[in-house]
Amino acid sequence: MDPKTLWSEGLGDVPAYVPGEQPQGGGWIKLNTNECPYGPSPKAIAAMREADDDRLRLYPEPSGQILREAVAKVHGVPAQDVFCGNGSDEVIAFAFRAFFGHGAPVLFPDVTYSFYPIWARAFGFDFKTIALREDYRIDPADYALPASGVIFPNPNAPTSVGLALDAVESILRAQPNRVVIVDEAYIDFGGQSAIPLVAKFPNLVVVHTFSKSRALAGLRASFAVASPGLVPALERVRDWYNSYTLDRIAQAGAAAALLDTDWTQELTGKVVNTRERFAAALEAKGWSVLPSQANFLFAAHPSRSAQEVLAYLRDRRILVRAFRGARLDKHVRITIGTDEQMDQVLEALDRF
Amino acid sequence: MDPKTLWSEGLGDVPAYVPGEQPQGGGWIKLNTNECPYGPSPKAIAAMREADDDRLRLYPEPSGQILREAVAKVHGVPAQDVFCGNGSDEVIAFAFRAFFGHGAPVLFPDVTYSFYPIWARAFGFDFKTIALREDYRIDPADYALPASGVIFPNPNAPTSVGLALDAVESILRAQPNRVVIVDEAYIDFGGQSAIPLVAKFPNLVVVHTFSKSRALAGLRASFAVASPGLVPALERVRDWYNSYTLDRIAQAGAAAALLDTDWTQELTGKVVNTRERFAAALEAKGWSVLPSQANFLFAAHPSRSAQEVLAYLRDRRILVRAFRGARLDKHVRITIGTDEQMDQVLEALDRF
Repeated sequence: MDPKTLWSEGLGDVPAYVPGEQPQGGGWIKLNTNECPYGPSPKAIAAMREADDDRLRLYPEPSGQILREAVAKVHGVPAQDVFCGNGSDEVIAFAFRAFFGHGAPVLFPDVTYSFYPIWARAFGFDFKTIALREDYRIDPADYALPASGVIFPNPNAPTSVGLALDAVESILRAQPNRVVIVDEAYIDFGGQSAIPLVAKFPNLVVVHTFSKSRALAGLRASFAVASPGLVPALERVRDWYNSYTLDRIAQAGAAAALLDTDWTQELTGKVVNTRERFAAALEAKGWSVLPSQANFLFAAHPSRSAQEVLAYLRDRRILVRAFRGARLDKHVRITIGTDEQMDQVLEALDRF
Repeated sequence: MDPKTLWSEGLGDVPAYVPGEQPQGGGWIKLNTNECPYGPSPKAIAAMREADDDRLRLYPEPSGQILREAVAKVHGVPAQDVFCGNGSDEVIAFAFRAFFGHGAPVLFPDVTYSFYPIWARAFGFDFKTIALREDYRIDPADYALPASGVIFPNPNAPTSVGLALDAVESILRAQPNRVVIVDEAYIDFGGQSAIPLVAKFPNLVVVHTFSKSRALAGLRASFAVASPGLVPALERVRDWYNSYTLDRIAQAGAAAALLDTDWTQELTGKVVNTRERFAAALEAKGWSVLPSQANFLFAAHPSRSAQEVLAYLRDRRILVRAFRGARLDKHVRITIGTDEQMDQVLEALDRF
């Protein structure tokens, strides 16, 4: 008996997802999944160790209240407009289901986070991709179409290009009756967060993660700040799947990490300095580098394809990411590591 | 503008889910969510503290490999037939989506875990409830109907009644072309696990949690053991929503907890002893108590309704659970706590 006959219809046709490689051995320079090269706040570590005790026998508080209150404090928003989840992918998946699908397509850029079309398909929603402009920028004028909603990352991934806040406002105004999700996974590396706009617009959901600027990709924590009255929709969808998504340790660690704003500032400051130095060095070698507001660069070698660069660096135990498809196959996405790591990349490229 | 106009269609009609109360203050005897009254294995705590470090900056291994290997070792199954998740609710939700919906209803008992109809509705699947027999038992003969699959807990919840392994086999044989999910959240308190049957039947998924017999409800961890070729379907569904569901600390803690079989045995032994003593005491007071193989009792006062018992105990800071509906409204579900806690319940009931 073929086990696939027991799967639900159509599932066998879905290609298995391949996440960025996570080599378990040592000796790799890992610049392929946009992790932070520095560790998380010691205050977060301390908070997690304190949560590691017999209280783990009890279910967690379901809404992540201590984390909601930390978000409220740091971002100056009401705690009831904060929603917490087990990584921003989960929060965005729930937001797709909570807000999209009104018999019109979800709009997002053609070059963007590869998960958006997957979520649209998972929920049976149409989507329409909007081409980035020639310079890889999102033009808000392109988003005034009949839609069931809009989602884009700011800064965009894998391009690293940021969008100014007035352009975000223009998209919100272009879709007054639909929710706009701004995925701000990389916002702390130079972008301008749309969180203050939730008080001004009724249709905004801003999603943040702890995996990048808070160096906690291994903890799985995230939050959304939404316009009033939208969080209950996210809660209903969450409660369809799993009513306790965020464990006690993650709640404690994420709240402490968020409150340690000095640590985040120091950490993102170091990454931004390294990024600027590394971008200048690549450009000096003739590479074309998109202007980055993220913790990675999207950069094209003057003559070699992205797959050639990827293979060359992989042989030297340096992992970067390359994508297939039009407007994607010349550029590699290189996460910003430590200064020492980026020097090793530059040295390796010298001999390319 | 009513924010609900921004929600996706139909979502506003879904009632918000109300989980069992989690009082944050002290002084409560909490017997309402089937948590374990004793703490988790010290080896699990030690493993979690060891995972709380700078490695948290990196994404976790996506499949929970160390936990899969622990399950493989403890249960004698191939690691590739193990799937890990962020609590058993999540794993069951993914299993609904992965295996059900073939244009026929999902079958489950009429008195059972209240989440099953919610998942069926969330994925747009029909379901058909099968009445438990007069003595609250599942009769396998009732499950030989056209179906897209079957799910039931063993022992059943909230009834606490277990199903013998030959009856589980009969259900598997009654649905040779559909998946049967056995939700074994409470199996370690006296039931007989169906895990050994995955080698014998092609259509079985057995789901376990760390929230009960491993005293880690606050950690959110779970696993399924499935017949060969079924785990890839679960992985595909998981990757539609969230490709990294289980964080580094949960992977480490759950693996260590599972391997510490002595701790689980001691802990479940204590709970079973307390349960038997408490059940006998209730029966001596004239209560009707269903035979329990779980860490809770489903018991009816000789004259008072479940809501009356609930309210009376709540006034004495003792939380138990009551359910509404036919065949449910006489019984309260009482989690087994420590001997001291159960003595306090008996004392309170003496004055009822």
